[in-house]
Amino acid sequence: MKTINVGLIGLGTVGGGVVRILQEHHDDFVRDQDIDLNLVAVASRGSAEAERLGLMDIFSTDGYDVVNHPDVDVVIELVGGVTHARDFVVAALEKGKSVVTANKALIAAYGRELMLLARDRGAEIAFEASVGGGIPIIGPLRHTLAGNRILSVVGIVNGTTNYMLTRMNDDALEYGAALAEAQAKGFAEADPTADVEGHDAAAKIAILATIAFNTDVSIEQVSTEGISSLSPIDLNYAREMGYAIKLLAIAKRTGEGIDIRVHPAMLPLEHPLSSVQGVFNAIYVVGDAVGETMFFGEGAGAGAAASSVLGDLIEVGRHLAYRESITQPIWDTENLPIKPILELETSYYLRLPVPDRSGVLAATAQVFAEQGVSIFSMVQRGAQDGTAELIYVTHAAKESAVRATLEGIEATGLLTGTPVLIRLEGAKS
Amino acid sequence: MKTINVGLIGLGTVGGGVVRILQEHHDDFVRDQDIDLNLVAVASRGSAEAERLGLMDIFSTDGYDVVNHPDVDVVIELVGGVTHARDFVVAALEKGKSVVTANKALIAAYGRELMLLARDRGAEIAFEASVGGGIPIIGPLRHTLAGNRILSVVGIVNGTTNYMLTRMNDDALEYGAALAEAQAKGFAEADPTADVEGHDAAAKIAILATIAFNTDVSIEQVSTEGISSLSPIDLNYAREMGYAIKLLAIAKRTGEGIDIRVHPAMLPLEHPLSSVQGVFNAIYVVGDAVGETMFFGEGAGAGAAASSVLGDLIEVGRHLAYRESITQPIWDTENLPIKPILELETSYYLRLPVPDRSGVLAATAQVFAEQGVSIFSMVQRGAQDGTAELIYVTHAAKESAVRATLEGIEATGLLTGTPVLIRLEGAKS
Repeated sequence: MKTINVGLIGLGTVGGGVVRILQEHHDDFVRDQDIDLNLVAVASRGSAEAERLGLMDIFSTDGYDVVNHPDVDVVIELVGGVTHARDFVVAALEKGKSVVTANKALIAAYGRELMLLARDRGAEIAFEASVGGGIPIIGPLRHTLAGNRILSVVGIVNGTTNYMLTRMNDDALEYGAALAEAQAKGFAEADPTADVEGHDAAAKIAILATIAFNTDVSIEQVSTEGISSLSPIDLNYAREMGYAIKLLAIAKRTGEGIDIRVHPAMLPLEHPLSSVQGVFNAIYVVGDAVGETMFFGEGAGAGAAASSVLGDLIEVGRHLAYRESITQPIWDTENLPIKPILELETSYYLRLPVPDRSGVLAATAQVFAEQGVSIFSMVQRGAQDGTAELIYVTHAAKESAVRATLEGIEATGLLTGTPVLIRLEGAKS
Repeated sequence: MKTINVGLIGLGTVGGGVVRILQEHHDDFVRDQDIDLNLVAVASRGSAEAERLGLMDIFSTDGYDVVNHPDVDVVIELVGGVTHARDFVVAALEKGKSVVTANKALIAAYGRELMLLARDRGAEIAFEASVGGGIPIIGPLRHTLAGNRILSVVGIVNGTTNYMLTRMNDDALEYGAALAEAQAKGFAEADPTADVEGHDAAAKIAILATIAFNTDVSIEQVSTEGISSLSPIDLNYAREMGYAIKLLAIAKRTGEGIDIRVHPAMLPLEHPLSSVQGVFNAIYVVGDAVGETMFFGEGAGAGAAASSVLGDLIEVGRHLAYRESITQPIWDTENLPIKPILELETSYYLRLPVPDRSGVLAATAQVFAEQGVSIFSMVQRGAQDGTAELIYVTHAAKESAVRATLEGIEATGLLTGTPVLIRLEGAKS
């Protein structure tokens, strides 16, 4: 039985969860995994949590005391952000110490650089917790599914927005009310931008695409739209047509390159992702051999993230303890191009607020025809205030043509409000 | 880049799928995994498939030619059954050659013996494909979720019966008709016993329980009931009450030991397993840190199983190529007792065919009272032919008391047909 000395930077909720597992399950890991995981150094800004956890004898307010601690074999980085966190991780890897992190922003921005540095120094960097909280997804993609050519990865990877959409769908809450409720329940930050505008999901799909396709994808390359323009009306219309609306993070291998994007999408109700409710996450993976698979679980929370951190720690620890060579740092062996969003071909839902009078329908339909966008279905709903709504669902069409259609319709000056565009995902129509 | 020489015994549909992946993706594995997987020997009874795949130069009808081939590093066993398969696997491990197998019967019956032999000889035996086809579940349980104390594993692990139950539910097909359709579509064998009586599911849950709880569970210890007594009537009543009926394979860690069983169960419609349709499989895992997770995918088919075989082959191959020590052969580090099914406490659905006359309801209710089984709900449905059906749902009760109740009711001589008992799973009532 070998001992692995662990250093931890960051004692927030996840850090606390990691410490509690190391304390409660230490003997289980000795018995079942044949390694003694020994916490020898912790650091965080404040000492309150360290006191609560009885760690004051190994506590410091300086992360470098953990990185530079002579006995530390593995550094767990739970600081978050990309400035200090990056400095700590680079410093640890430079010393040949392996790193376990839950930091999606760091991996999405600097994953390649860190992987290469790790390989250079014969160290390892593991980040299962950076995507999908406790859901095993990086491990399965890198190992169990390694026999496949992965064709697509489509995920509900942001619990905040999925909770909001669930409430907007189930109880017709307006966007603002759903956000306020999510904030009240602690599911959304005071500044919810990263979640509701899709940036959090974009970082996660960049990481998943990189692992699934062995090609370097950075967050800037992900075409990203959030949910702030959605209203319960749209979820209601979608449901009537047999669809759920979810904020999807999508990455597909296509002939023209990687199609990667984050946006609200209509999904047939029978699709496995449609039934993912509330703060849960799920990642749907299609491989050429395995076919459809889906991984479901808690995408956030101290326990879930700590579970993935421990899984990585045990694997890295066993590699170190039993002199296993470092696993192949797959990052960009394939180097695929990114497909521009304007080249996307799918079906589209468009909701157009218009005046309730004759000729309007014909005028809008005319614009679709001009742009060669063929219509799958159209419904007109009258309102009391003399306005109406036209709900168009198109056949598969090019994003560029649909955007041109929308501009053409706006140019008619007929719109009485902001139109809504939602892309369809998962076939049907 | 290292070369791993692979031998394959068994060229059925899965074997053919494995060969095709090795041929089509050979260069991908070189690039992405840094190993050259080189098929040097194959064996099967007939040579037709070997000819189709252009393997005649390395073909033999004798599995031992593969096991004993001097260059073979890893043996893939796809023979099935527990006699020849066991001999081949033991012979390979004896020689210190690692083994990848999809053979659930073999692992459920001899897993412990084979694991210990492998450790003895510094070899590895991998069996991701033995449960859930292409669904990554053994890997996640052994690695990504290793930080958890696993509390329960509940799975829909038999595609044949899930297809039949889906058809019985969606189109009110009778059991016989559903079976005939499954056989016509190739989802069920000519002799369907292993599937419909739950033996296939029992082997799979024995393996999952062993991995999840680090305790040796053999198929004989799994209390097993099949679906042959079910009728669309029951699925219909269940749906009205907000439940789906699925053939569940259940393993739970309890204070009194491992609660492990396979039987048709009622599951609240909102439970993630309830929406698993047709031949798909899903495994629902609860861990103390991760909370709820679910793994979904194709449980059968050449591609799905081949995907898992390749995942194992790549991992074992990388261990060999890069001198990684063998992963801990966790099999029975914990040694937990099995909880007898009579000790089970849950809610029960009972459908009692009775004569449609006064006093019958009271007489049956009296028996519940005598056995101290308290009733959650009761519905009586009259039929045209003077008979009626009493549908009881109980509060949580001991299996022993419920069986005594059923015997007591049979003793009244009131039953006009065979009663149906279905256990509830996943809470509600």
